Amino acid sequence: MHHKLNDPSELITPCLLVYPDRVRNNIQECIRIAGGPDRLRPHVKTHKCRQIVELELEMGITRHKCATLAEAEMLAEAGAKDVFIAYPQVGPAINRLLTILAKYTKTEFCVAIESVANATQIDSRLGEVRKNLDVLVDVDIGMHRTGVPVERALDVCRAVAAAKQLRFRGLHAYDGHNHLPKLVDRQDSVRGITTHLSSLTERLSASGLECATIVCGGTPTFPVFAQVEIADVSIELSPGTCILNDFGYSDAYRDMNGFEYAAILMTRVVSKQHSGHVTLDLGHKAVAGDPPAGRRCHFLDIDAVEGKQNEEHLVIQTPAAERLELGDVLYVVPTHICPTVALHSEMQVVKSGQVAGSWPVAARHRIYR
Amino acid sequence: MHHKLNDPSELITPCLLVYPDRVRNNIQECIRIAGGPDRLRPHVKTHKCRQIVELELEMGITRHKCATLAEAEMLAEAGAKDVFIAYPQVGPAINRLLTILAKYTKTEFCVAIESVANATQIDSRLGEVRKNLDVLVDVDIGMHRTGVPVERALDVCRAVAAAKQLRFRGLHAYDGHNHLPKLVDRQDSVRGITTHLSSLTERLSASGLECATIVCGGTPTFPVFAQVEIADVSIELSPGTCILNDFGYSDAYRDMNGFEYAAILMTRVVSKQHSGHVTLDLGHKAVAGDPPAGRRCHFLDIDAVEGKQNEEHLVIQTPAAERLELGDVLYVVPTHICPTVALHSEMQVVKSGQVAGSWPVAARHRIYR
Repeated sequence: MHHKLNDPSELITPCLLVYPDRVRNNIQECIRIAGGPDRLRPHVKTHKCRQIVELELEMGITRHKCATLAEAEMLAEAGAKDVFIAYPQVGPAINRLLTILAKYTKTEFCVAIESVANATQIDSRLGEVRKNLDVLVDVDIGMHRTGVPVERALDVCRAVAAAKQLRFRGLHAYDGHNHLPKLVDRQDSVRGITTHLSSLTERLSASGLECATIVCGGTPTFPVFAQVEIADVSIELSPGTCILNDFGYSDAYRDMNGFEYAAILMTRVVSKQHSGHVTLDLGHKAVAGDPPAGRRCHFLDIDAVEGKQNEEHLVIQTPAAERLELGDVLYVVPTHICPTVALHSEMQVVKSGQVAGSWPVAARHRIYR
Repeated sequence: MHHKLNDPSELITPCLLVYPDRVRNNIQECIRIAGGPDRLRPHVKTHKCRQIVELELEMGITRHKCATLAEAEMLAEAGAKDVFIAYPQVGPAINRLLTILAKYTKTEFCVAIESVANATQIDSRLGEVRKNLDVLVDVDIGMHRTGVPVERALDVCRAVAAAKQLRFRGLHAYDGHNHLPKLVDRQDSVRGITTHLSSLTERLSASGLECATIVCGGTPTFPVFAQVEIADVSIELSPGTCILNDFGYSDAYRDMNGFEYAAILMTRVVSKQHSGHVTLDLGHKAVAGDPPAGRRCHFLDIDAVEGKQNEEHLVIQTPAAERLELGDVLYVVPTHICPTVALHSEMQVVKSGQVAGSWPVAARHRIYR
């Protein structure tokens, strides 16, 4: 399948194109790797898009993971039945969480909690909406970002289990630090993590706490966690990036070659003044700026080296410069798709080389409207 | 004036606070440095906010500069009378430009053009809306991003002057490459640029072309260009960042110490598990990721070193960690405010320590609605 539009002349750039057939392929590939849709809990943060959630639902995925409350709300509105909010809820976010629990009664929510203090805070508020709330205790398995260290996790699990309206369901164990390019090294790392998690679930069991579920494995490691077995525990896999896929992940993890680029930036030549160089309308207000400057874009149809990038400009050095004219269109895979999507209010939907409507990036606002 | 909210307990984080008194101070400081409001043409890309445009209009600023067509449209809707679109318009952007010219009849627009080809393209379309259009020829004075090199500028100026509906008004000469921290070095650089520009205006004059205006000087150099005189030319200054101000600019340009931080991020502690560290809800989806990782945030009330940052998390190392609790609020000046603002749908307006409404970041969408 080709990424180029048959007629790009009407579409103002920079813009983000999305290819539903490729999204479907990527969801299917996740299902294949996981061994079935019921083992998946994909992360919505990559696309923040209701229409992609609907594709996931159509294809049999029943569980979802998110970071922001806007994402949680969008998932509920899309008809998701089981939403895990994998982010600590503190301060007024707890108020909004309660509003969401009360509003979306057809969706079961579950939250990550990593401290006794936060368990108590949230539990003490649940009476206001007369709800119970499932909890996965967030354990730090090496990322040192959020999560209680494994050796102190038992106390938090006990506090959750002892709380009035919280229900201890299991663990969230995100290994975002595990970005080793070689599959064998990721497998080694996951073996170490699994040993810790198994030991923790045994200690939980000895304390009378059943760990029904562990949510683990982002895009780089979910194929590895798909092979993990821990007695009496359901392993749920939460890939994110690969639903759209990007250059950073596909370049780093060559073993994951069944995913296609499902979201591609379209840009135009806006200046051509120097031999071997052109300037594009692809600044870091349109493509994620978190990869280092010079490594934010992958060009699909030309060889190019990124030069100066500002908010609305990208200068490239390319052997194609001589033949490129003002207004010519280029297609670019971002190095990091997740924050790139969040820079766009909508994605242009491409079917058979034609633009067929647009999908709003609905949850890019922090407060869902 | 203090930046802290009297009661931050209701505001969900991360969010962007804006302080109208400080915005007014910064506009006033621009006017003072420029020597009067009529010498200013501030760039709207920093804030993309109609309410700030209205403040500028109230304070006597009549000219505005923008990059995107959404910004141009927002300026017109705010009542701006004179809007310079400093970005090359190619392909379907020309269609949209025509729509805007036809729709906002109370606003005079002016565009940057840097090639004979583009002059011809745009001129040939203006008949459709029966409009004339002022042009500033964009000259490259060292940034090598857009703009015709000075030595080739005469041809473009002639083509504009010879076009049917284009009106040659002067030059756009943006020196974004001139980011030397020492004022004396920026002055040296501007002296060199001025020599080139003077020589060009003389050649233009000799060709019978009057260069009425040169728009030049972004935030770092507009105080220097404010002192420049070129015979028979009106020098218009186009600062951007300093209207809100940020850590990157205030740290780099110590001579510009009359500007206040007028937009500040509010964040909360969401995790506290390791001695000396806390994790904040301030990922690079809420603060601009274009500065290198580790240098994206300036903390106002604590000493802190940035560690791992992902989309929704920032780990910091801080001596304040022991006293900080889950949910505690911190205030952060972004290193780069312009792309930070574009990550937020709105700014919370702070007056006397209270939230008094919100200002939409109206032009963050590429197509203005």
